[in-house]
Amino acid sequence: MSKSIFYHAGCSVCVSAEQDIINLIGSNNVEIVNIGENRTRIQEAEKAGVESVPALVTPNGNTLHINFGASMADVKG
Amino acid sequence: MSKSIFYHAGCSVCVSAEQDIINLIGSNNVEIVNIGENRTRIQEAEKAGVESVPALVTPNGNTLHINFGASMADVKG
Repeated sequence: MSKSIFYHAGCSVCVSAEQDIINLIGSNNVEIVNIGENRTRIQEAEKAGVESVPALVTPNGNTLHINFGASMADVKG
Repeated sequence: MSKSIFYHAGCSVCVSAEQDIINLIGSNNVEIVNIGENRTRIQEAEKAGVESVPALVTPNGNTLHINFGASMADVKG
């Protein structure tokens, strides 16, 4: 992958962090995925090591968990 | 401020996140501060809302806590 992927679930912490990440690395460099709505991508996020949202998966595959919003268990409900 | 500030305390989680942040936003756009060594800046970090390290304070003053490494209480010892 060449872009980062920002996974979120629509919570207020997520939305705030999303704006910060876009400001920092540029909207062209990050794909935004709402796994609260787009539930088919939950499995992909978990495979990438996402344990809570918001989280940023970098192009080299590292996962940065940012300001805890919700656990994956909560997102899966 | 125009640069982000990345606060860390030298832990392995911090060092890994530091490399990711530099790759993502560029070393020219972030000041790296090791508050484990440079203890005079602990107070500044706390004022910026840093509760754990590693953390990134953005140019607009938001604090992004990244992959929990150590609490400020642990850093202060």
